[in-house]
Amino acid sequence: MTATRTVELEGHIIDSGMMQRAFGIVMDLGGDFDVEEFTVGKSKTKESYCRMAVTAETDDDLQEILHELHQIGANLTDPVDAHVEPAPADRVVPHGFYSTTNHPTKVRYEGEWVEVDDIEMDCAIVLEETDGGVRAYTKVLNAIEEGDRVVTDEAGIRVEPPERPRDSSGPFGFMQGGVSSERPSESLIREVADALEATKEQGGKVLVVAGPALIHAGAGDDLARLVREGYVDMISAGNGFATHDIERGLYGTSLGMDMETMEHPRKGHKHHIYTISEVIRAGGIEEAVEEGLIGSGIMYECVRNDVPYVLAGSIRDDGPLPDTITDAVEAQKAIREQAHEADMVLMLSTLLHSVAVGNCLPSTTKVVCVDINPATVTQLLDRGSSQAIGMVTDIGTFVPTLADEILTGESAVTDGGDAEGDGGNDRGDSESDDSRGGHCPGR
Amino acid sequence: MTATRTVELEGHIIDSGMMQRAFGIVMDLGGDFDVEEFTVGKSKTKESYCRMAVTAETDDDLQEILHELHQIGANLTDPVDAHVEPAPADRVVPHGFYSTTNHPTKVRYEGEWVEVDDIEMDCAIVLEETDGGVRAYTKVLNAIEEGDRVVTDEAGIRVEPPERPRDSSGPFGFMQGGVSSERPSESLIREVADALEATKEQGGKVLVVAGPALIHAGAGDDLARLVREGYVDMISAGNGFATHDIERGLYGTSLGMDMETMEHPRKGHKHHIYTISEVIRAGGIEEAVEEGLIGSGIMYECVRNDVPYVLAGSIRDDGPLPDTITDAVEAQKAIREQAHEADMVLMLSTLLHSVAVGNCLPSTTKVVCVDINPATVTQLLDRGSSQAIGMVTDIGTFVPTLADEILTGESAVTDGGDAEGDGGNDRGDSESDDSRGGHCPGR
Amino acid sequence: MTATRTVELEGHIIDSGMMQRAFGIVMDLGGDFDVEEFTVGKSKTKESYCRMAVTAETDDDLQEILHELHQIGANLTDPVDAHVEPAPADRVVPHGFYSTTNHPTKVRYEGEWVEVDDIEMDCAIVLEETDGGVRAYTKVLNAIEEGDRVVTDEAGIRVEPPERPRDSSGPFGFMQGGVSSERPSESLIREVADALEATKEQGGKVLVVAGPALIHAGAGDDLARLVREGYVDMISAGNGFATHDIERGLYGTSLGMDMETMEHPRKGHKHHIYTISEVIRAGGIEEAVEEGLIGSGIMYECVRNDVPYVLAGSIRDDGPLPDTITDAVEAQKAIREQAHEADMVLMLSTLLHSVAVGNCLPSTTKVVCVDINPATVTQLLDRGSSQAIGMVTDIGTFVPTLADEILTGESAVTDGGDAEGDGGNDRGDSESDDSRGGHCPGR
Amino acid sequence: MTATRTVELEGHIIDSGMMQRAFGIVMDLGGDFDVEEFTVGKSKTKESYCRMAVTAETDDDLQEILHELHQIGANLTDPVDAHVEPAPADRVVPHGFYSTTNHPTKVRYEGEWVEVDDIEMDCAIVLEETDGGVRAYTKVLNAIEEGDRVVTDEAGIRVEPPERPRDSSGPFGFMQGGVSSERPSESLIREVADALEATKEQGGKVLVVAGPALIHAGAGDDLARLVREGYVDMISAGNGFATHDIERGLYGTSLGMDMETMEHPRKGHKHHIYTISEVIRAGGIEEAVEEGLIGSGIMYECVRNDVPYVLAGSIRDDGPLPDTITDAVEAQKAIREQAHEADMVLMLSTLLHSVAVGNCLPSTTKVVCVDINPATVTQLLDRGSSQAIGMVTDIGTFVPTLADEILTGESAVTDGGDAEGDGGNDRGDSESDDSRGGHCPGR
Repeated sequence: MTATRTVELEGHIIDSGMMQRAFGIVMDLGGDFDVEEFTVGKSKTKESYCRMAVTAETDDDLQEILHELHQIGANLTDPVDAHVEPAPADRVVPHGFYSTTNHPTKVRYEGEWVEVDDIEMDCAIVLEETDGGVRAYTKVLNAIEEGDRVVTDEAGIRVEPPERPRDSSGPFGFMQGGVSSERPSESLIREVADALEATKEQGGKVLVVAGPALIHAGAGDDLARLVREGYVDMISAGNGFATHDIERGLYGTSLGMDMETMEHPRKGHKHHIYTISEVIRAGGIEEAVEEGLIGSGIMYECVRNDVPYVLAGSIRDDGPLPDTITDAVEAQKAIREQAHEADMVLMLSTLLHSVAVGNCLPSTTKVVCVDINPATVTQLLDRGSSQAIGMVTDIGTFVPTLADEILTGESAVTDGGDAEGDGGNDRGDSESDDSRGGHCPGR
Repeated sequence: MTATRTVELEGHIIDSGMMQRAFGIVMDLGGDFDVEEFTVGKSKTKESYCRMAVTAETDDDLQEILHELHQIGANLTDPVDAHVEPAPADRVVPHGFYSTTNHPTKVRYEGEWVEVDDIEMDCAIVLEETDGGVRAYTKVLNAIEEGDRVVTDEAGIRVEPPERPRDSSGPFGFMQGGVSSERPSESLIREVADALEATKEQGGKVLVVAGPALIHAGAGDDLARLVREGYVDMISAGNGFATHDIERGLYGTSLGMDMETMEHPRKGHKHHIYTISEVIRAGGIEEAVEEGLIGSGIMYECVRNDVPYVLAGSIRDDGPLPDTITDAVEAQKAIREQAHEADMVLMLSTLLHSVAVGNCLPSTTKVVCVDINPATVTQLLDRGSSQAIGMVTDIGTFVPTLADEILTGESAVTDGGDAEGDGGNDRGDSESDDSRGGHCPGR
Repeated sequence: MTATRTVELEGHIIDSGMMQRAFGIVMDLGGDFDVEEFTVGKSKTKESYCRMAVTAETDDDLQEILHELHQIGANLTDPVDAHVEPAPADRVVPHGFYSTTNHPTKVRYEGEWVEVDDIEMDCAIVLEETDGGVRAYTKVLNAIEEGDRVVTDEAGIRVEPPERPRDSSGPFGFMQGGVSSERPSESLIREVADALEATKEQGGKVLVVAGPALIHAGAGDDLARLVREGYVDMISAGNGFATHDIERGLYGTSLGMDMETMEHPRKGHKHHIYTISEVIRAGGIEEAVEEGLIGSGIMYECVRNDVPYVLAGSIRDDGPLPDTITDAVEAQKAIREQAHEADMVLMLSTLLHSVAVGNCLPSTTKVVCVDINPATVTQLLDRGSSQAIGMVTDIGTFVPTLADEILTGESAVTDGGDAEGDGGNDRGDSESDDSRGGHCPGR
Repeated sequence: MTATRTVELEGHIIDSGMMQRAFGIVMDLGGDFDVEEFTVGKSKTKESYCRMAVTAETDDDLQEILHELHQIGANLTDPVDAHVEPAPADRVVPHGFYSTTNHPTKVRYEGEWVEVDDIEMDCAIVLEETDGGVRAYTKVLNAIEEGDRVVTDEAGIRVEPPERPRDSSGPFGFMQGGVSSERPSESLIREVADALEATKEQGGKVLVVAGPALIHAGAGDDLARLVREGYVDMISAGNGFATHDIERGLYGTSLGMDMETMEHPRKGHKHHIYTISEVIRAGGIEEAVEEGLIGSGIMYECVRNDVPYVLAGSIRDDGPLPDTITDAVEAQKAIREQAHEADMVLMLSTLLHSVAVGNCLPSTTKVVCVDINPATVTQLLDRGSSQAIGMVTDIGTFVPTLADEILTGESAVTDGGDAEGDGGNDRGDSESDDSRGGHCPGR
């Protein structure tokens, strides 16, 4: 006994590698295929189309194959509605639940294709009938409530992976097929600067994810400049990042090292602890800025310029600062909101926080990963953004060069007219209101 | 105006590098020293002694120097009691609080030297009068309560860094002066096995800190064997580690890869999420073992053999499992308890959890760090255990080799006795026979 | 004005990624394509066919595109003979010379397709008329002589990249799409052992390329065992490798470190120099074995078992040993001969020598790259063997485990026998189909 | 029976770590010591002195210990002449030959201490009587001729390791105790620029050792600028470096990648081979510059500005270029001459060539190692220069930043004269004051 179903793929399915992956999945998982129709785009602007029947020995095997095919955008042809089953309990998904990709996705409901909101990978899709019709959105396992109507199976779902923009100018797409340290760094940084400026000009939001190495590498002042000049809309970091930044303002040191002269390296951790203690005494970072304890640095500019930040806690933290969200689930929620709002994300020298943010991003968000360790960059790019640049370079020269590229041009962001300025204010307001306590219907 | 105080150092202060560091600190921080007495141990078993006056331009500078000298075991000669000040508020330390090292430490109280309990680095010392006299112990910043009597300044405190055991046989101390991948891995693993067995024979406790890479590398069965046979007393890990381990039992996969054949690599994350969902449904890992959902693996053996585990949450977790401690501060507390109980710690392929555990360890605990990334090993060894081995090797061959070394000998842990002892001697004898006595024509 | 030519691709051109790369090349280089015929293999055993016209703005641009298309196996349809031009001088190629891939290649000569001998990448193809007809073979630039008839242009040449064997079990092909340290090392080593045994059983030749880290890691004895038992047919290494191996036999040290006990680490380089001096005095490695100076180790086993070795010189060498080929061009020649003879190559902990050997290999040779540094493994796999495994693991545990897998069975290479066969069958029927019907006694 | 000899150490033997290492060596090698005199420098400018008797069980063991003590500067007190024995054959050293360190060294000959010329590590010392008296100099094993009077044993030799300059300003010495990527890169590059300028102002020679990654990273133009402006006196590189540089001039590509736009990445190696072929046709690099084939780039500037270069061959080379020295022994000789002439060495992104150069350097030469791979930097620093900076950074941003620091000041090297000198002084003064406020006219 065998089981068969028919799937179809369309678009630039050859040059985006989709066909190759589809054939590979079927064969790797022991299935068979019969190509019923194949139309190849005759020229480079034309799309191709493939319809094929996929066969496996058992229903379970077929399900497995269809699941994987789905991940890459091969959709079932059958015009059926998505299957839905109620979640049996809080934080428990029904058997055979559909696990999302990070690509734009639609579910079929009563014959209509409904876009899934807040798409992000490894989530369940919940269907909810509302006054205005039906709504589909993602929920992480943790947010599932008993009775949620969870989509199962692959039927009635369409995934649309963004295709590589073949003729596109600009840096995104460059790194397709690997990350290399053997590339002209300066020209690549220039392209990142252009992309960041373009994002701002189009009213987009820039999220910076940063680790403490940025401060140690001496790039704190340059990131602070970018915040002050309005090029950073949100920051996602950890307790260590904020503490090192503040400590540097208080003592001119970061983890006991004099950042300017480097002549008095000290190993002591005392300043670090005392910095946290003083911020706790003040009541928090904002209060510490207000009472004058903190007078410079990235966190200072964030407070002064209403740039919201999420500081996520970790088991290796000292303190932590009162602003740090110590519960991992709460911190993830805050990170998720930032991720969903961002149009461009700069991941700077942090694997932990970059993975956390990357997990919540749709594949359509622009991402730039910078780290001196090639393994970190590779791991982040593997997460599946289709518009990602990876740079293996020194954060201590990357950020200053980027800031110079952006800030020493003729026009800063602020003279981009009223709309810009308003946009900035709006952005600040809405975020400082809700960025942490905000509610997120789907989860 | 200058300020001066006198410190003394004793022990193997030259060959342990203590004198060098002391001179370096004074000079790096702009101070001056006048050596008042210096007695060098005439032979290798004799200790040395140094008393010197340290001078700086200001009191603050001197304080800074004395703080750093303290960290390495140079103690003030003045026979005064430790200064104590009340904590001004919860989680706030008084100005000039004494920040601990991870070395054995004493504070002077009413003329008596009191041992500080639960020593660990970057903490405050709290003095508490009890019925049985005074007690000194460490508190992390987070645990400080208003009114706690916190030690300030460096006066009345003695730090006693463990000295490198010059003649010691055994592996610990080997890696002093650097980690290298160019070392005979097999013989080093044999030495780790010996040290682990010796720890168990002496009634010590072994803590394993492990990351998910251990499961991916195929070493799960071997670690499970070590747990089952009683060589592991505690496990410190994360949500990912436990989920991968359980997933492998449920599906024969870890993150979608068939661990046995590797013939059907699948990228899907669905099993991962469903594994967590099922454990949530069961109510937790223990319940899942009881109801038969989990029938093998490391977590299974932990439950069956009453080996406690701490699963610390992180912002990149899926789920998480109900057993995961999501609050970073709570998780640190649980990790701290494990760390204080451990006599030997194996850090296997995880930087995050190893740093968290390492932060809580006194410098006297035996530590073995294993990772394929040299940077990880270096970073962990830098944390200052004086009895640490770092190995840059493949966890996928390390754990199986270690398990074989330990478990395929004549005797298990419980019947240690003669055979063990003999084995140990044999090994020792054979080694002392050849490789050293050999003569070298060329010299 | 535009230029157009027609190319065709056939085989598993979709699932091997060939079509994707072809489209990509045309678009990346600014060309256009018009697909004239496209037949897709309806099922997984069927091949596909594509014929398309490629257009570019200038003849030069078109030439560029055709050159790149050639590299991946897209061949011109025009049934013309290959163009040939005489080399204008020694070591000078004619303008527009055809630069080879490492894939099986044919040139058309008087209407016949002639196989190119000794195919290897980045060479010229020389056509030579002989008594028995015409011969085509590769020549590196250095070997080109004035008047050599060198193939130019892409016309009349067919490249046939080996396709990924879709259904093949076995390790080769595993690492397609990346190298990971997160794989079960022990089972992968077992598969390498199987492949090595299968190669020997089929009368193939095994070339080991090794670096000095192998000796430092303590794996010298195990490689020596493999040489002694006949599993290694050739060794390619450097002066350092041989010297460390011999030094270890003479002094029990490698670069001054006692390999057995590691208790007396010494930094001195004196033994190293004296070892070379003594071998020079003896007249060479073979003479030193004969006069009893060298009595164990890898080089000893090579001499005793007539296993040829190439020691290539380098600018960082001490000495060097008399056996070292100091001229880079001469050394390349010797390496090239080994590479052309080898059926399977193990690259163990050396980037320099592995690249040198890899440069001379056709894409059909089996290659296993082992290094603890992921960057080294990635770089070697990028060189384009289609049958390559990369392992990021510790050479100090890899070689012993491999030797145990191979040598601790009942039977050595020559006496395969029944037990062997059973072992093979047990492990997996699916595997017995192809290359490995082989026997694996020890498991 | 035991053997005993007396050694003495003087200088900053404690804070340079010399005492610690001396005690360590004796104990590690199973010896005993009896400290006969120990005078500690009472303050930081005072030197210390130690005389101790070293005892071992056998003469051979004692010899071993004395050899190691020598390496670190512990010299025999006995006022005897150095022992000398004739080399028994070409390239063969006498038994017990003295193997050099890279530190300044003297040998005692007829009661006089004679400085050893061209000191470099792992060499023999040859004594030669000349008209003007005796001359002592190093010879590598390869250069030893039968009858050469080679120093044996450790008697009559004094090694004087340079001490860490405690109060020195400037970057050299910074990296003592490890390399870190967590340092402010921009300020460190500034210090390297200062050191390079200072070297030039004092009439010193700057040697640049560079690998092909420098070209790929887009830093070729900036290095060419530094050559043109007179800041580079010699270049040590390989065939690949020169070819990529020339190819880039000829085709705007480096290994087939368009360096400016990066929009047309091509994998082909054809340009690379053809570049070499064309240079061969021209007769060499200089001839190719003269005939106009090469019109820009680093090699072009070298030819135009009479900056000598050594291109050392390697077994992975294509071609090679006619300028490449293919014999490793000849290449080493050429490298050795450069190394001995250099006052400051920049090692940029090449392990192989950096090791080769580093092997020939005395410990007193200033060295800057730059690589994105921490392992490379660590390995190079381990080679024992006492004035070395290691930077883990991106060569693609390092070289441009360095060139800007040096070249965008008012005055280039040639018009240095007074202003320069003053500038140098100003900088020095201001830095010793506070190191931050200083202005740097020379840039």
